[in-house]
Amino acid sequence: MTDTINAQDHALTADQADEQARREEELIQRVLDSFDSTPDARLKELMQSLVKHLHAFIRDVRLTEAEWEQAIEFLTAVGHITDDRRQEFVLLSDVLGASMQTITVNNPANGDATEATVFGPFFVDDAPEIQYGQDIAGGAHGQPSWIEGTVRNTRGEAIPDARIEVWEADEDGFYDVQYDDHRVAGRAFLRSGADGEYAFWGLTPTPYPIPHDGPVGQMLAATNRSPVRAAHLHFMVTAPGYRTLVTHIFVEGDPQLEIGDSVFGVKKSLIKQFAEQPAGTPTPKGRDLGDQTWTRARFDIVLAEDTDEQN
Amino acid sequence: MTDTINAQDHALTADQADEQARREEELIQRVLDSFDSTPDARLKELMQSLVKHLHAFIRDVRLTEAEWEQAIEFLTAVGHITDDRRQEFVLLSDVLGASMQTITVNNPANGDATEATVFGPFFVDDAPEIQYGQDIAGGAHGQPSWIEGTVRNTRGEAIPDARIEVWEADEDGFYDVQYDDHRVAGRAFLRSGADGEYAFWGLTPTPYPIPHDGPVGQMLAATNRSPVRAAHLHFMVTAPGYRTLVTHIFVEGDPQLEIGDSVFGVKKSLIKQFAEQPAGTPTPKGRDLGDQTWTRARFDIVLAEDTDEQN
Repeated sequence: MTDTINAQDHALTADQADEQARREEELIQRVLDSFDSTPDARLKELMQSLVKHLHAFIRDVRLTEAEWEQAIEFLTAVGHITDDRRQEFVLLSDVLGASMQTITVNNPANGDATEATVFGPFFVDDAPEIQYGQDIAGGAHGQPSWIEGTVRNTRGEAIPDARIEVWEADEDGFYDVQYDDHRVAGRAFLRSGADGEYAFWGLTPTPYPIPHDGPVGQMLAATNRSPVRAAHLHFMVTAPGYRTLVTHIFVEGDPQLEIGDSVFGVKKSLIKQFAEQPAGTPTPKGRDLGDQTWTRARFDIVLAEDTDEQN
Repeated sequence: MTDTINAQDHALTADQADEQARREEELIQRVLDSFDSTPDARLKELMQSLVKHLHAFIRDVRLTEAEWEQAIEFLTAVGHITDDRRQEFVLLSDVLGASMQTITVNNPANGDATEATVFGPFFVDDAPEIQYGQDIAGGAHGQPSWIEGTVRNTRGEAIPDARIEVWEADEDGFYDVQYDDHRVAGRAFLRSGADGEYAFWGLTPTPYPIPHDGPVGQMLAATNRSPVRAAHLHFMVTAPGYRTLVTHIFVEGDPQLEIGDSVFGVKKSLIKQFAEQPAGTPTPKGRDLGDQTWTRARFDIVLAEDTDEQN
């Protein structure tokens, strides 16, 4: 610590550096102590840990007063653009990987259980139910894609009647709720069959940017980062006795996977081949696609047993 | 790290805990890498350090998704109450000690040089000039106080003609700028004399709360913390060739010193005796105070040489 201070504070003597470190540490202790009589033990733990990490950041980077002022201005701008329709703090959390880390921490590794990823802001609770092999597009434009798989537990046993919610953007990169006409498109739920099987027609996912005309977008630009999310299709799978799975599947070969998903939602295990099918290739369920190409992908879902009463 | 995960995630096996730690660390690495091509080296350093500390916080406390949502709501409320007259993010930084830590980091220990403390939001650049021994109150109510001292450097040499800005709240706990009538009261600047000496009449400082009717006040209430600042009088002292000193003096015996200053501005070296003078005690400069009591305090200021071209 003394070394850090020496390196940046214009050659303090060893005594000065010791005194400086003492002052910084004494301040941290005072702030920690101020939370000592917090009635809620968990709130106390959260606040004291926050203080430790916040102060460690300020000390590590030797934050200048001008930088502190810029940070205050940035947070103020994030607060002012946030309203009922736009949540810039969630975007900020997303692009710093904090949302994904929270999800990771709360979905502990469990054998072969399918990995979770970010929920995103576009889920709506009233999607229509479809039957095995039906179409979720509801008029949304894009290349048709046949998605099929099974729902099983970590012992390989089929989970029948699991509720599978799926939702995705159209080929222009917009979810139905982003249009003003109350359409319901690109979303549905279905239930797994007796052997855990499920299948539906959707759209081959396409990449789209997160909203980047605000302060978070400016931060991405200043750091040379792409605002684009890797192409994906959302799943939320629930079944009694199992941990709810919120995840996506991603598209093998999507160039954005190399560039980087702007919210860090990608896990290698969730990248699936969407195999291109030439126009005229016979379709499952005999769907007539005329001269359109289509894709097909397989996503076998494994749910973790719910050993935690909170879930 | 594995231990931490084991302790909270409902008895993962050792293998699961290792895999879990690997996933969390791999995510951090991906977020760090995303800032690798930031053109500005300092911005890159700031963002990558922020990511490290933010993710360490989430992992250490095993932040739940519900807690993450509460944090987003809290920041949103802080953003929404902030306007041209109220800066809740600065308050938040203050009550977490982040403002004071930034000041501490930027004012390295330097022998006997007077310690710095928070600037606060109530300084105004157009205070009137007064001469040695004149009154800064300008009609502000409170117990008169005679403040005197010298301005010297760390070698003990007098600094003549230093500019000494002083400002303080009235006995009701309000600065002049908090009233709507454009009064100028409780603030002035003066210059040190040939031997570095200065003196003025002010008011004995009184404690007052920071604004606590917003989200930051709710946080203080939930953690059983006082919103009150220890009684203080602000100084800003500038002289060519010296580091600008922004500080306060505090009042020995103020009970808030024990309870805790809500923004952590107190340093022991800045606590001064404000000696009570019975009514009728002869005053410096023969000021007629009628039957009022008054106090007197001494504050000898030591400026650090400015060895840093940025200052």
